[in-house]
Amino acid sequence: MTRFFVEQDICRDDTLSLTGENAQHAKVLRLKAGETVLLCDGQGMEAVCFVTQISSDEITLSVKERRDSSSEASVQVSVYVAFPKADKLEHVIQKATELGAYEIVAFPSARCISRPDEKSLKKKLERWQKIASSAAEQSGRGRIPQVLTLGSYQEALERAGKADKALLFYENEQATTLKMALSAESFSTVSLMTGPEGGLEQAEVERAEAAGLQVCTLGKRILRCETAPLCALSAVMYHSGEF
Amino acid sequence: MTRFFVEQDICRDDTLSLTGENAQHAKVLRLKAGETVLLCDGQGMEAVCFVTQISSDEITLSVKERRDSSSEASVQVSVYVAFPKADKLEHVIQKATELGAYEIVAFPSARCISRPDEKSLKKKLERWQKIASSAAEQSGRGRIPQVLTLGSYQEALERAGKADKALLFYENEQATTLKMALSAESFSTVSLMTGPEGGLEQAEVERAEAAGLQVCTLGKRILRCETAPLCALSAVMYHSGEF
Repeated sequence: MTRFFVEQDICRDDTLSLTGENAQHAKVLRLKAGETVLLCDGQGMEAVCFVTQISSDEITLSVKERRDSSSEASVQVSVYVAFPKADKLEHVIQKATELGAYEIVAFPSARCISRPDEKSLKKKLERWQKIASSAAEQSGRGRIPQVLTLGSYQEALERAGKADKALLFYENEQATTLKMALSAESFSTVSLMTGPEGGLEQAEVERAEAAGLQVCTLGKRILRCETAPLCALSAVMYHSGEF
Repeated sequence: MTRFFVEQDICRDDTLSLTGENAQHAKVLRLKAGETVLLCDGQGMEAVCFVTQISSDEITLSVKERRDSSSEASVQVSVYVAFPKADKLEHVIQKATELGAYEIVAFPSARCISRPDEKSLKKKLERWQKIASSAAEQSGRGRIPQVLTLGSYQEALERAGKADKALLFYENEQATTLKMALSAESFSTVSLMTGPEGGLEQAEVERAEAAGLQVCTLGKRILRCETAPLCALSAVMYHSGEF
């Protein structure tokens, strides 16, 4: 069933429509009256619809069934990454979206060598959000993860700390594994925080602990800053029974 | 402790040396007599050495202790990927090396849109092996995973099938999760096989089953061909107690 992300409220009316890029895409696919398509609102809700009418710039649809998206993870995982170089952040946004992240949050830390200035941030956020949308569509997700940026490390700690499980990965931690951190009790929200290219400073790790985050290791091998969050996310999804 | 990958047999003599690029690197680091360094043979063996003498193009070392590399995974995971586009294969080689893969094996399948010709293969293999070496060094591994290519899908099935656990990931599989496939009994070698950009054909999946591979899912979201092997590898490492 072909899927379309739409911005309209799919729960209000029983007649919906595809316009703009979606209508063009439907034409490329040679969609015909009577066919069934899936409309996703990007918030985890989807509507199974019949095509009722096709005009030059609009496809009219009739809603058959509404449901929660079946492809969203049962656990909400927020991926917190210290600003890496631009191409690496884009990589993390794309892959974390495929892997089912709930949101991707970039924050500054002491050793970040790259940090967008205020002026360019709005444009960059639009670009990053587009990467998430397109990855969500390709991977068949029902929800487009939001991409956020925070102004300070402290803000990141406070926000991340609100999850049922808030974890910080640090290459000098040896005792506590991710498995230990996850096994204690059940959880439905998780924050996974990782450092920048040059790593987090010891003092930053201590501040994270003070803020209630649990410090753990991703094993004996040093992972690059763009590999660590995706490795941790894959493991949490596996642990939570996603695959 | 600074680590060097060397090609010599580090187990034969009690006097070793750094030459060529390694000697240059040692100079950049201003290594001094009396300092301790780690020599890795790239096969999982390492030697802790003192620097005894420094000449213009050679550093002479005295072996203090030999040991198995402490950063290698306890489970041997072979990552089998159907030839993706060149940049994606390079990505998989780099990341799978960081994540602790034992070897990376590329093979052809029906829908592969990219497959190196005989003529360019030798040069490409050299390049790929270099990517693995450099990722192994950066991530602190004691073993450089070998990058191999196979001539046919059948060959890949037969080779992969020899592992204790031989798994094929297929987006149309829904019943068997990776967790089910791993939970049955213990294992020390694993093959993880994934398809190309366009996916595997149903007939190919059936041939894999006939060859003894277990078909499983990586969840409800469709992963790109370069994301799937790394997600599976992360999960297997997590399952095996690596982190």
